[in-house]
Amino acid sequence: MKKFVYSFGGGKAEGRADMKDVLGGKGANLAEMSNLGISVPAGFTISTEMCDVYYKNNRKYPPELEKEIQQALANAETIMGAKFGDATNPLLLSVRSGARVSMPGMMDTVLNLGLNDQTVEGLIKKTGNDRFAWDSYRRFVQMYGDVVLDMKPESKEEHDPFEIIIDEVKKSRGVKSDSELTAADLKDLTYKFKKLIKEKKGLDFPTDPWQQMWGAVNAVFGSWMNQRAITYRRLNGIPEEWGTAVTVQAMVFGNMGMDCATGVAFTRDPSTGERAFYGEYLINAQGEDVVAGIRTPQQVTIVGSKKWATSNNIDETARSKQYPSLEESMPQAYKDLETIYLKLENHYKDMQDIEFTIQNSKLWMLQTRGGKRTAAAAVRIAVEMVGENLITKEDAVKRVKPTDLDQLLHPVFDPKAKKRLVAKGLPASPGAGTGRVVFHADDAEAWAAKGDKVILVRIETSPEDIGGMNVAQGILTSRGGMTSHAAVVARGMGKCCVAGCGELNIDYPKKILSVRGETIKEGDWISLDGSTGDVILGQVPTVNPELSGNFGTLMKWADEYRQLDIRTNADTPKDATVARKFGAQGIGLCRTEHMFFEGDRIKAMREMILADTTTDRVKALNKLLKHQTDDFYGIFKAMAGYPVTIRTLDPPLHEFVPNEDANQAEMAREMNIPVEKVKAKVQSLHELNPMLGHRGCRLGITYPEITEMQARAIFEAACQLTKEGVEVYPEVMVPLIGTIQELKIEKATIKRVAEETIKKYGVTLKYLIGTMIEIPRAAIVADQVAAEAEFFSFGTNDLTQMTFGYSRDDAGKFLPVYLEKKVLTADPFQTIDQEGVGKLMEWCIERGRTTRNELKIGICGEHGGETESVTFCHKIGLDYVSCSPYRVPIARLAAAQAAIKFREFRDERLKKQNHKPVKAKPSEV
Amino acid sequence: MKKFVYSFGGGKAEGRADMKDVLGGKGANLAEMSNLGISVPAGFTISTEMCDVYYKNNRKYPPELEKEIQQALANAETIMGAKFGDATNPLLLSVRSGARVSMPGMMDTVLNLGLNDQTVEGLIKKTGNDRFAWDSYRRFVQMYGDVVLDMKPESKEEHDPFEIIIDEVKKSRGVKSDSELTAADLKDLTYKFKKLIKEKKGLDFPTDPWQQMWGAVNAVFGSWMNQRAITYRRLNGIPEEWGTAVTVQAMVFGNMGMDCATGVAFTRDPSTGERAFYGEYLINAQGEDVVAGIRTPQQVTIVGSKKWATSNNIDETARSKQYPSLEESMPQAYKDLETIYLKLENHYKDMQDIEFTIQNSKLWMLQTRGGKRTAAAAVRIAVEMVGENLITKEDAVKRVKPTDLDQLLHPVFDPKAKKRLVAKGLPASPGAGTGRVVFHADDAEAWAAKGDKVILVRIETSPEDIGGMNVAQGILTSRGGMTSHAAVVARGMGKCCVAGCGELNIDYPKKILSVRGETIKEGDWISLDGSTGDVILGQVPTVNPELSGNFGTLMKWADEYRQLDIRTNADTPKDATVARKFGAQGIGLCRTEHMFFEGDRIKAMREMILADTTTDRVKALNKLLKHQTDDFYGIFKAMAGYPVTIRTLDPPLHEFVPNEDANQAEMAREMNIPVEKVKAKVQSLHELNPMLGHRGCRLGITYPEITEMQARAIFEAACQLTKEGVEVYPEVMVPLIGTIQELKIEKATIKRVAEETIKKYGVTLKYLIGTMIEIPRAAIVADQVAAEAEFFSFGTNDLTQMTFGYSRDDAGKFLPVYLEKKVLTADPFQTIDQEGVGKLMEWCIERGRTTRNELKIGICGEHGGETESVTFCHKIGLDYVSCSPYRVPIARLAAAQAAIKFREFRDERLKKQNHKPVKAKPSEV
Repeated sequence: MKKFVYSFGGGKAEGRADMKDVLGGKGANLAEMSNLGISVPAGFTISTEMCDVYYKNNRKYPPELEKEIQQALANAETIMGAKFGDATNPLLLSVRSGARVSMPGMMDTVLNLGLNDQTVEGLIKKTGNDRFAWDSYRRFVQMYGDVVLDMKPESKEEHDPFEIIIDEVKKSRGVKSDSELTAADLKDLTYKFKKLIKEKKGLDFPTDPWQQMWGAVNAVFGSWMNQRAITYRRLNGIPEEWGTAVTVQAMVFGNMGMDCATGVAFTRDPSTGERAFYGEYLINAQGEDVVAGIRTPQQVTIVGSKKWATSNNIDETARSKQYPSLEESMPQAYKDLETIYLKLENHYKDMQDIEFTIQNSKLWMLQTRGGKRTAAAAVRIAVEMVGENLITKEDAVKRVKPTDLDQLLHPVFDPKAKKRLVAKGLPASPGAGTGRVVFHADDAEAWAAKGDKVILVRIETSPEDIGGMNVAQGILTSRGGMTSHAAVVARGMGKCCVAGCGELNIDYPKKILSVRGETIKEGDWISLDGSTGDVILGQVPTVNPELSGNFGTLMKWADEYRQLDIRTNADTPKDATVARKFGAQGIGLCRTEHMFFEGDRIKAMREMILADTTTDRVKALNKLLKHQTDDFYGIFKAMAGYPVTIRTLDPPLHEFVPNEDANQAEMAREMNIPVEKVKAKVQSLHELNPMLGHRGCRLGITYPEITEMQARAIFEAACQLTKEGVEVYPEVMVPLIGTIQELKIEKATIKRVAEETIKKYGVTLKYLIGTMIEIPRAAIVADQVAAEAEFFSFGTNDLTQMTFGYSRDDAGKFLPVYLEKKVLTADPFQTIDQEGVGKLMEWCIERGRTTRNELKIGICGEHGGETESVTFCHKIGLDYVSCSPYRVPIARLAAAQAAIKFREFRDERLKKQNHKPVKAKPSEV
Repeated sequence: MKKFVYSFGGGKAEGRADMKDVLGGKGANLAEMSNLGISVPAGFTISTEMCDVYYKNNRKYPPELEKEIQQALANAETIMGAKFGDATNPLLLSVRSGARVSMPGMMDTVLNLGLNDQTVEGLIKKTGNDRFAWDSYRRFVQMYGDVVLDMKPESKEEHDPFEIIIDEVKKSRGVKSDSELTAADLKDLTYKFKKLIKEKKGLDFPTDPWQQMWGAVNAVFGSWMNQRAITYRRLNGIPEEWGTAVTVQAMVFGNMGMDCATGVAFTRDPSTGERAFYGEYLINAQGEDVVAGIRTPQQVTIVGSKKWATSNNIDETARSKQYPSLEESMPQAYKDLETIYLKLENHYKDMQDIEFTIQNSKLWMLQTRGGKRTAAAAVRIAVEMVGENLITKEDAVKRVKPTDLDQLLHPVFDPKAKKRLVAKGLPASPGAGTGRVVFHADDAEAWAAKGDKVILVRIETSPEDIGGMNVAQGILTSRGGMTSHAAVVARGMGKCCVAGCGELNIDYPKKILSVRGETIKEGDWISLDGSTGDVILGQVPTVNPELSGNFGTLMKWADEYRQLDIRTNADTPKDATVARKFGAQGIGLCRTEHMFFEGDRIKAMREMILADTTTDRVKALNKLLKHQTDDFYGIFKAMAGYPVTIRTLDPPLHEFVPNEDANQAEMAREMNIPVEKVKAKVQSLHELNPMLGHRGCRLGITYPEITEMQARAIFEAACQLTKEGVEVYPEVMVPLIGTIQELKIEKATIKRVAEETIKKYGVTLKYLIGTMIEIPRAAIVADQVAAEAEFFSFGTNDLTQMTFGYSRDDAGKFLPVYLEKKVLTADPFQTIDQEGVGKLMEWCIERGRTTRNELKIGICGEHGGETESVTFCHKIGLDYVSCSPYRVPIARLAAAQAAIKFREFRDERLKKQNHKPVKAKPSEV
C-alpha cells in the first residue's frame, strides 16, 4: 500500500531533504532537521501525492488516510508529551501547506488547532497564562473562520468581519492596541466570533479537534486551487500537477513569556553574500510579529546588533538595554542556534534561511531552506564556498541562476529611493533609465544633442527610430512584446526598455501620454525599470553595480565546463567592444540594416529604392559602399581574432521610406522629385503581410546589386585589415533562405566579389558563406541547403513565427490568453518551443550534417541568451549561441550548466552526426 | 561510342516512335513511319543528346559527329537517288528542330539547303522549271540569311530587309504579288539578297553545301536558347535540359507543278472528335501556303468538300470545278493517303495530325503526331476508340488531360466572335463573362438587382465583396495571384475571374479604369476570358457547352480506377448541388465566414465584435444562431448521404468591419453608437501581419462562445434532418491548430454541444471532430494532434504560406522573378511543393497514423483540384481531396490517372501505416 503520511520529530523522521517532490520543501526540511538530531516540534506531513488523489477523487480522501494520520499523530503526542484534544494537557497543532518550491503567502495556514472550551482551560493550567491561552483561542477561531469556514470578505473593499468586532470591543473598552485587551476581553471576543460564524454560516464552530483538523487539511489542499495560487504558478512556471503537501506539526510558542522568543536568520548576508550570521528576533512574540513590523526586531548577533545601532544612531548603553542581541539576552539559546546554523550550512552546503522559536528557553527549529539572495550575494557565496572546501567548482557553477546575472550587468535604481509607480509594462530589457519624455526619435536626438537625458515613448518603434533609441536613456512602448522591435533593439544596446505597456494612451499630435488619471507631457521626467516593467513618475537615482572579482572567477569556472561557444549580436564597434568585455567569442549576428539610417545614408538608400533602373540603383548603392566598408572595418577590428557573421540586407524596403505625409513631403523635397512619386513608391512597397513579404534574400535575388555592394564592403574591409596585420574571419550570412537555389544565386555573387577583392589585395583570407535557418522549408530541406551552406544559424524569432503562424507583433491579442489557458506553457518567443520549433531544428541539424559533417551551426535569435533555450541548444549539438552583449555572461553560465547536466547526451548526438566542433578562441574575460 | 545520328527512309529507320526523348517528336515519328513502310523523304536526326553536349562543350561538336552525318547523308542520297551539292542531280535538304514536345514556331528551320549557283542550274535541268528553281534559291538565301546569318531586324518595328528589296523589285516591275515575278526577277532578287548580306555582315553567302548545313544545324541547336523558346518553356513547364534534336531531311516539293500538292489533315475531327477524316490541301503549293491563308485551301475528302461548299454558299458545279477535293483531283494519291492515315491511326491508336506533300503525283508523308483537339473531342475520341477496340478503358482514362475538362464545364466565348483585347491578367478562374463594369460590390448588387449584367472590377477583393461577386458575371482584379481572395472565391462559385492584371489603373473615386491608352468607365461593357486571362472590350457572345454522354462514360471509367475520394469545397446548398452533379462524394471544406455577410447577419456579427462582455457577445451570437442553423440545414440536405466537413470561423475579425470612413459612419449610424467607437475597434483589430494573427481557432479559444454557437447550429441542423430521415454525416473541422491543447479546448466545446443536442433530439448521429493541418507546427506534432483529431485536412494554402514564409497576397513582388530565375520550378500556391511542403505532409501523415491508424486524411487547399497535386496526394496515401465544384471532374480524372500510375506506391505506404481507407459512397454521376 502506498504511504501518504510521513512522521518527523524526536531525532528521527520518515522523510528526507531530497523528498521535496513528495513532502514539499517545508516537510522535507523538517524531516531532514529531525534526522540531524535538531529539535523540531514533532508532527507529520501528508504527501503531495495525496493532493493529486484528493483532486482526482472529487475532493475526497481514501479511507486508509485517517488511520495513517492517527498513527502519526500518536507518535507526535508521545514525543511532545501532550495529547491532541486532551482537556488537561492539550497538544496544539499547526496545519501548513508546502509545495516543492516555496509559494510564499499563496496558500492557507491554520494555527493553534485543537483548542475548544475544554482544552483552553487545560492550556491555562499548563501555562499559568490565561491571557495567552484566550489570545491563542481567539486567534484560532478567527483564522479557522477565515480559512476553513470561508468568512473572508469577498472583495478587498470590505473589512474583515472579525476585525470589525475587535475594533468595536477596543472602542467599548477604551483601548487602542490589541495588547491592552485583557484575558476577559479576549474570551469575550472568542465567543463573539463564534456567534458571528453561527449567524453568517448557520453552523456551530466545531469543537471536536479531529473535525477541526480535517477542516484545516481540506482547506490547505483546497487552497492549491485558489486564484492567487493559480496565478502565482502561472507567473512562476510551476506545474499544477505538482500539488502541495500538508504539514501538521505541534505548536511551540514564542509568546508565552519573557523566556520565549521567535526569530528568523540567514547563515550569510543575503544582500552581499558576506560570511556573517545575520538574523532578527523578538522576545515574547509570535513569528508573524517579526514579519509584521509592528515591533522593531532585534539583531541576533552582537556584531549585527552593534552595526544596526550605529546606523540607527543608538548608543551602546541604550542598545544593550533596549535592543540586546539574542547572543546577549539568551546566550544558551544563541549558542544552540549557532551550533545548529553551522550544522545546517555544512549539511546543506548552502546559505540557509532559518526560522526558530524559543519556548521557555528551549530552542525549536521551525524551518530551514536555501536562502534567497541577490545576484551579487549568490556569486560571492558560491565562489567563497569553493574556497572553504564546502562545495566544488562544479557546484558553484550550478548554483547561480544565469538570469540573475542581469542584475549585475545593468545600473539599477537605488533600492532605498522612493518611487511613484504609474504603470507597469513588460520588462523587455533590464536596467534603469531616467529621463525626460519625448515622443519622436528626431526629438530624442535633438534634445540629447543639447545635453538632455530623454526617455523615448512610442506606440511602437521601427528602424527609423534607431537614432533616437540610441541616444535615449530608455524606451517605453505601449504596443509589442518581449521580442518587439523596441525590445530587441534595446537589449542589443544594453538599454532599458519597458514594452507593451497597454495602459498608456499616447497622443502624438498633442505630445502627451495619459495613464491612470495622470497626464505626462513632453519634457516631464519619468523613470523606467526594465527588470520589473515599472514606469515611475519623476527621477529616481540609480546605482552602478561593479563587477566583482568573484564574478570573473565564476565566469572562468563556467568556461571550463561549457562546450558551446558564445557569440554576440552586435551591429557596431561599440557593441562589439562591450560584448568582448563580457567574453563574447565572436559576432553571431551583425545586422546591416541599421547602418543605413545614419546621416546621409538614408538618402542614398532611398535613392536606391526609388531608382527605376539597375544602373540608377547601382549608382545609389555606390554611395553606400564607402560607409558600409567603414562600418565593417570598425566591427572586424573590434572583434579582431574572432569570427564575425554579417547578415546581408534583411528587412523589406518599405522600412526605409517614410509613412507619414510630412516626412514624405520632406523626402520629395530633399530628393527634388514630386511627392506623388514618393507616395506611389511607398504605396507600391506596401504589403499585407510584410513578415512574409519581399525581404531577406528575396531582395538580393530581385536586386543582386544590393548583395554585390554589401559583399564588396565586407571583403574590402576584411582585406584591408588583413593587410594591416589584423586577424579577420568574415562569415557572410544570407537571410530568409527557403530553397537551395536562392542560396546558390546569392552565394555565387558573394563568392565572386570575395575572390575578386582578395585577388585585388593579394592577401590570404579565410571566409565562410552560410545561411540563416528561419524559414521552415529551409529546415526541411537542410540536406540540400548544407550542400551550399558552410554554416547554419538558426533565426529562431522568424522560425518561431512561421512554425507557429504567429506574428510576434500581433500575437499580443491572444498569447496572454494562451498562457492563461495553458495552451502554451511558455511564450515561444522567449523560450524555444522544443516540441515543435525544436523538433524542426533537430531535423535540420541531422539532415544538414548528413550532407556536411563539419557544418558549423549556431543560433542568433533572441533565444540565444535565454537559459532554457541555451540548454536545448547545447543538447541538440549546436556549435555556438549568439545573444545581445549584455546576455553573454548569462549564456556562458547557462551553457556551462547545460554541459554539466547534458554532456553525454550531446556527445552522443555529435558522434552520430560525425561532427567534431572546432572551438573558437576562448573568452578573454 | 555513343550514337548521335539516326537515319530514316526507304522503309526502315534506326529510330522508333518511343525514342522522342532522343529524336524529338518529329524525328521519332518520321523514323516510325519509315519503319511502317510509309514513304517519307529520307534523312537523319541528330539527337537531343548532342544538344546537351553542344552547350556543355561551349557550343562545339565532338569530332565523331561529322563522320556520322556523312554516313547518314550518304544513305539518304542513295534512297532519294540524288546527291547533296551535285551540280546535275542535287539533293536539297530541310533542317528542322524537334523537341520531345512540340514547341510550334519557337525554334528555327532552314529549307532548300544545298542550293548554290551551280546546283540551281542542276535543279532547273532536273525539273525543267526555272522559275521554281530560282524561287527556291531566293527563298533559301532569304531564310538562311534570317536564321543563320542573323539578318533578322532587331525590333518588330523595323522591316525585314529582304522584304524591302522584294517590294522595291515588285515596284520597279510594276507588279503587285510575288507570283507575278518572273524567273529572271527571282534570280535578280537572289543576287540582291546576297549583296545585302555581304554589305551588312561583311561575308560572302556560303556556297559550299556542307558549310551551309553546319550553319543551319548550329542555328537550330542555337535556337533552343533563344528568348522565345526560353519563355515558351517556362510557360509550359518544359525543362531546359531536354534539348532539341535536329532533323535533316530530303526536300520534296508540292509546288513543282499541277501534279504537285501539299496538305494537312486530322484523322478525326479535332473540334468535335467525330470519326471523320478531315483535311485541307493546295495544288502546286508549299506547306507554308496552306497555313498562311493567302489561297483558300481545298478539302481533302468529298464529304468534307461538300459540307464546306454548303456553308460557304458555293454550288456543286463551282465546287467541283474550282475547289475539288483531293479525293477527286488526285484519286490515287488520296487513296494512298487514306490507307496511310488508317494505318497510322491504327498503329498509334490515337487521332493523328499529319502533313503530306505530293510531288509529281507521288505522296510523301512529312509528319505525323498526336493531333491537338478540344476537350470535347478528346473525350469523344477516347470513349469511341474503346468502342472500336482500338484502346482499353485504362488508355481512355489516361488519354484525356484532366485540366482540359475545364473547357467542358464553363461557358466559353464563341470562338468565331471578333475580340478586341485590351489587357491580359492571370487566368484565375475559367469561364467567359460579359457585363458592364462596376467598381464596388454594392454597385454590383444594385445594378444586378435591376437586371444588369455586371463585371466587378477591384484592385483586390475582400470578404465584404462576396455579395457583389456573387451577382457578377465575372471578376477582374489588378492585384493578387491565382490564389488571391478573388481567385479562390470565384473558382468556388464557378465564376470566371481574371486576377492580378497589373496593367490596369483603377481609380475608385472617378470610377474609371485606364489601360493601354483606353479609358473604361463605369457601365461600359467588357468581357473576361478566365481560361486565358484575356480582358476584352465590349460584349462577346458565349456558347454553353453541353456535357455529353461520353463525358459521363469517361468519368465512370475513371471512378473504376481511382482510390481517392473526391469531395468539394462548398459553402452553400447551391454549390453543394452543383458539386453533387459533378460527382462530389461529400464536402471537404464548408467555410462558414461567408455566411455572415448576407442581409442582417453582418449587423449581428458586428454587434458581436463590438461587444465588451461575454454576455453581450452571446446575445449577438444568438441572433446568428438561427441563420447558421438554416445554412447548415440546407447544405446537409443538399449533400444527403455524404459527409460534410464544416470549418469553424477562420478569418480575423477585422474582415467583418468596414475600413472606409463612409462605411464606418454608416455602421455607427446603424448600430446607434458613436463613430469613434467603431473607429477605435477597427483600429484595435488592425494587425501588422493578419495572416499570422488573431484568427482560426485562436478566435475560438479567446471567444469560446463563437465556437459554441457554431457547434450548436451544426448539430441542431444535423439532428433535425436525422429526425426527418435524412442521412447526415457532420465533420467539424477546427482551423489553424498549432498545438494539441488548442484542439483539446475546441473539441471539448464542440463535443459537449453535440452530445447535448443529440440528447435533446433523441437521435443517433455519427459525427467526427478533426482539424486542419495548415500550421507547420501542427504537422510536426501530428502524433500528438492525432490523439484528439478524428481526421486531418491539409490546408495547403496556408501551409505553403508558412512553410515558405510567403504571403500569397504579397508574393507577386518576387514570385515572377523566382520563376524566371528558376528558384522555383512552379508556383507553390498552384502545385504542391513536394520537396518542402510535401515532405512535411508525409511526416504528418506517418506520425498521425502512428497514433491513430484509422485517421482519415484529406486536403482542402486549392491544390486539391490541381492534377500534379492530386497525383501527389494519391501517392502519399490521402483518403480524399476536396476542390471547388467545377474542379471535381478534373480531380476524379486526375485521381484515376494517379491510381493507374502509382497504385503500388500508395498501397505500400498505406500498409506501412496500417491504414485501411474507408471509401465514401461512390459518385452518383
